[in-house]
Amino acid sequence: MTFASRLAAAVRRTRSVTCVGLDPRKANLPAGLRETVQGDRPEEWAAAYTQFCCEILDAVADLVPCVKPQAAFFEQLGPAGMISLGEVIAYARKKDVLVILDGKRNDIGSTATAYADAYLGGESPWGSDALTVSPYLGRDSIEPFVEVCDARRAGIFVLVKTSNPGGGLLQNRQTDGQTVYARVAELLTELNAPRTDSDGYGPLGAVVGATYPQELAEMRSAMPHSWILIPGFGAQGGAAEDVKAGFHPGGLGAVVNSSRHIIFAHARPEFAETYGDARWQDAVRAATEQMNQQLNVVD
Amino acid sequence: MTFASRLAAAVRRTRSVTCVGLDPRKANLPAGLRETVQGDRPEEWAAAYTQFCCEILDAVADLVPCVKPQAAFFEQLGPAGMISLGEVIAYARKKDVLVILDGKRNDIGSTATAYADAYLGGESPWGSDALTVSPYLGRDSIEPFVEVCDARRAGIFVLVKTSNPGGGLLQNRQTDGQTVYARVAELLTELNAPRTDSDGYGPLGAVVGATYPQELAEMRSAMPHSWILIPGFGAQGGAAEDVKAGFHPGGLGAVVNSSRHIIFAHARPEFAETYGDARWQDAVRAATEQMNQQLNVVD
Repeated sequence: MTFASRLAAAVRRTRSVTCVGLDPRKANLPAGLRETVQGDRPEEWAAAYTQFCCEILDAVADLVPCVKPQAAFFEQLGPAGMISLGEVIAYARKKDVLVILDGKRNDIGSTATAYADAYLGGESPWGSDALTVSPYLGRDSIEPFVEVCDARRAGIFVLVKTSNPGGGLLQNRQTDGQTVYARVAELLTELNAPRTDSDGYGPLGAVVGATYPQELAEMRSAMPHSWILIPGFGAQGGAAEDVKAGFHPGGLGAVVNSSRHIIFAHARPEFAETYGDARWQDAVRAATEQMNQQLNVVD
Repeated sequence: MTFASRLAAAVRRTRSVTCVGLDPRKANLPAGLRETVQGDRPEEWAAAYTQFCCEILDAVADLVPCVKPQAAFFEQLGPAGMISLGEVIAYARKKDVLVILDGKRNDIGSTATAYADAYLGGESPWGSDALTVSPYLGRDSIEPFVEVCDARRAGIFVLVKTSNPGGGLLQNRQTDGQTVYARVAELLTELNAPRTDSDGYGPLGAVVGATYPQELAEMRSAMPHSWILIPGFGAQGGAAEDVKAGFHPGGLGAVVNSSRHIIFAHARPEFAETYGDARWQDAVRAATEQMNQQLNVVD
């Protein structure tokens, strides 16, 4: 089954469009996990990151279709962190949760192929189901990923319109009435069109931030064949109303990521009293259930 | 000393503007190294990559100011490859060769900080002197790198105008007469201006391909404070004449990368007969000396 079809199946099975962002940060880990790190060595932190992410997966595996590990936080620990990243991806696959690795990789042709080969597909060294990809290098930097997606039934999510305030500097520039982000969307639709599954989706997903609801609606209609990964929900300010425009009728077509609001839920006032640091896993589960209820779009 | 000043000192000391791209690929390794891999395990390939890159460093350390490991090829081996990448960077530093890690990383603010923290500066887990960075996410995704550059005297090279044929799709789009790549250049100049060293260079370098000589000249004048990393020389078709416009009078201001033409020189007809696979290190050194002669710009 293609990645797009696996994602649709997972959304239908869990009746959830929540993507849990796995963004481990030293300072925010629950106290019990921080205390396992005695010597501040990268290997110790990496072990704590693995345990943290695997326990999150235990808490949410039946509740959500996918998780999104953020490569940067693992890379921050050096090679030890990359071993942890591999372990976390493998554990997610074992729990039957789809993995969208957030690496925002890209390069020119033959090097793009190396990134695709590295990350995409169960037989690859990292074994991710999908990868986020940056479009600045143009069409011939995207096509190598598509080839690997075709061969391995994997997916990519290309940055289209990002959630940060400064994203517009390049993305919103207009040429003959068309923004840069709309040009990227046009490319994705062209590449997806001959590759759609029975629900109408192809391997080229798109990243469109929750913080720009109007652009999200515009992009939903410009990219009928793309799954949209919507970051910026929760801690970054996006609300349930803001992401509605990302879905097709019936609730397919988008997944909404939340990282800090879920994985560090034990520190949110509304959960801190009930669960606290000691029961952080229950806080993660409660925050995930809350988000599922807020985004109740699946028929 | 800042990264820009260290790079200028290294160019003056070696009288070279050659950057050797460390792009190990299984199929292209010299036969003797390929034969050390008995079981096709990632750990074996990673050991071969480390040996390959360290022997290249032995061959060129006195000839060039810097090397540019391409992260993708190490990531292709999974976590074992990332251990190799760390070893190669550490060895380059030991040999007093500056390291520009080609990772083309970026993300929104706090995650950009994690990438910067991961890769930049001798005390970081990877310990690179500089990192290539993608600008698609805008100004607030570049500033976190600049802060880390300031704190650790490191550098970045932001993608401005890339060497691949498809690079123009987004980069060449004009708004009010200004291309996207020119807008990126303007941002770099603004951020560099208050940070220049005695030669006039700041921490924000730029990537401008050798394959577009006219744009290179335009970008040289638009970014007076940026070191320019020029890829696309040699195997990608750029010639010595094409890159001249990247330099300031006296030969500072740019380094020119060549990967395959140097590191796999043993397979080039002009070197194969003299050196062959068995003396591949001598072929690397000869190809580097040849490139230094072709790019004889330093006063």
